[in-house]
Amino acid sequence: MNMNDRAAAFRALHRPGRPLLLPNAWDHASAAALAARGHPAVGTTSLGVAAAAGKPDGTGATRDDTLDLARRLRDLPVLLTVDIEDGFSADPAAVAGFVGELAALGVVGVNLEDGRPDGSLAPVDLAAARIAAVKAAVPGMFVNARTDAWWLGVPDARPAALERAAAYRAAGADGLFAPGAPDDTVGSLVAEVGLPLNVLHRTGGPDLATLGRLGVARVSTGSLLFRAALGAALHLADAVGAGRDAGLPSAPDYGWVQGLSAG
Amino acid sequence: MNMNDRAAAFRALHRPGRPLLLPNAWDHASAAALAARGHPAVGTTSLGVAAAAGKPDGTGATRDDTLDLARRLRDLPVLLTVDIEDGFSADPAAVAGFVGELAALGVVGVNLEDGRPDGSLAPVDLAAARIAAVKAAVPGMFVNARTDAWWLGVPDARPAALERAAAYRAAGADGLFAPGAPDDTVGSLVAEVGLPLNVLHRTGGPDLATLGRLGVARVSTGSLLFRAALGAALHLADAVGAGRDAGLPSAPDYGWVQGLSAG
Repeated sequence: MNMNDRAAAFRALHRPGRPLLLPNAWDHASAAALAARGHPAVGTTSLGVAAAAGKPDGTGATRDDTLDLARRLRDLPVLLTVDIEDGFSADPAAVAGFVGELAALGVVGVNLEDGRPDGSLAPVDLAAARIAAVKAAVPGMFVNARTDAWWLGVPDARPAALERAAAYRAAGADGLFAPGAPDDTVGSLVAEVGLPLNVLHRTGGPDLATLGRLGVARVSTGSLLFRAALGAALHLADAVGAGRDAGLPSAPDYGWVQGLSAG
Repeated sequence: MNMNDRAAAFRALHRPGRPLLLPNAWDHASAAALAARGHPAVGTTSLGVAAAAGKPDGTGATRDDTLDLARRLRDLPVLLTVDIEDGFSADPAAVAGFVGELAALGVVGVNLEDGRPDGSLAPVDLAAARIAAVKAAVPGMFVNARTDAWWLGVPDARPAALERAAAYRAAGADGLFAPGAPDDTVGSLVAEVGLPLNVLHRTGGPDLATLGRLGVARVSTGSLLFRAALGAALHLADAVGAGRDAGLPSAPDYGWVQGLSAG
């Protein structure tokens, strides 16, 4: 598929009512394995990318790691969308330039967030200007605008999120990502936002079918798969040390994992 | 601790009869998490390092990734031993130079194997010469000599492994690693090899206490934690897609994972 077809294919996976399950990878193995398991699209998790490299998440420290990962994943048979935190810059032109680099690697989407490392929201005009700059530079890129109004626990989160959703839509955003939105606001968000809505899967929260009935278009796993993978490794190390069975699903074998790499 | 004290501390963890459980990490997060869980020493897994980078294991492709990982882990409060495949070179001097680079990063041990990408064993003289070169260049380094006689399924594996163990011991090896050694040979290996014996943990195989009774000094997890982590992520993605509980141990939370990075 050429780039335009790939971008169109990714866009078409956002079906309100029958949401795309977007699992988030953090390295080549996780992305390749999720692709091999049949997921048509894979995202990245900034926490996973940062933690794998030993850097903090959400502080703009992982620009190069993020680009490097996209480069490593470029030949995988999967549609790739990349978590770029706040674009790693307050300068809209710099963010657009960065997304242009990702587009050149075949990336079809980005998540661009308005949260800042200090726990506040970026001014809405700045956040919208970044989105507009990206869309002007790379019109085919699926820009999933993330508002951290709930995630960061700002006061009056709902009106803040709605104001931002409107501004981001006007700036050309293709979707809205609202991590931490309370379950009972999801349905009304779908109705009010006017963009495909992406919510974060939560253990014990509403399942895919329930979110579909609310009109959600995309459900992503965020850092959950990364954290669960790490937790499983720790749990298994404990079990080996204690001489007991870990009770985990059976691990993929050596040959299968080797096969995930291009050779 | 200075380098000599760290090397001595690592050496002292190899207690025949009360084996060191050495878990193997593949990135900063896994190493930092295992250290935080209280493991005094952590190894790396060449499969994990290779697969994370999208490269094949055991083919000499990951020299730079291996060094880069050691650099990222240098400040962790844990003793680090690094899987360097066959030293990424047939030239003993080049292998010694590479291990010198690792030593400069605070690494206290290496695994050096005699298996080759084509599935054959390197000539015993070459394998021994690499060990001797490393020990001459970095005397304090714990060189865990790995023989792949069983791993690669060579004919007459046991005599081949014993011949190699003797040669590697004469070359200055500090320990012998015999992945794939049949369970019923472990006790006699301990008696015959004259080096601390390291075996690979196997799901369903003898537990740590049993291996201790056989005189084993170190039990490592090889690629198992990496593969189990990947398997858990895939299993969880499937479960989210199907709307069912994954039945995994609870994942570490976002803040705990963030705390693994230096900030």
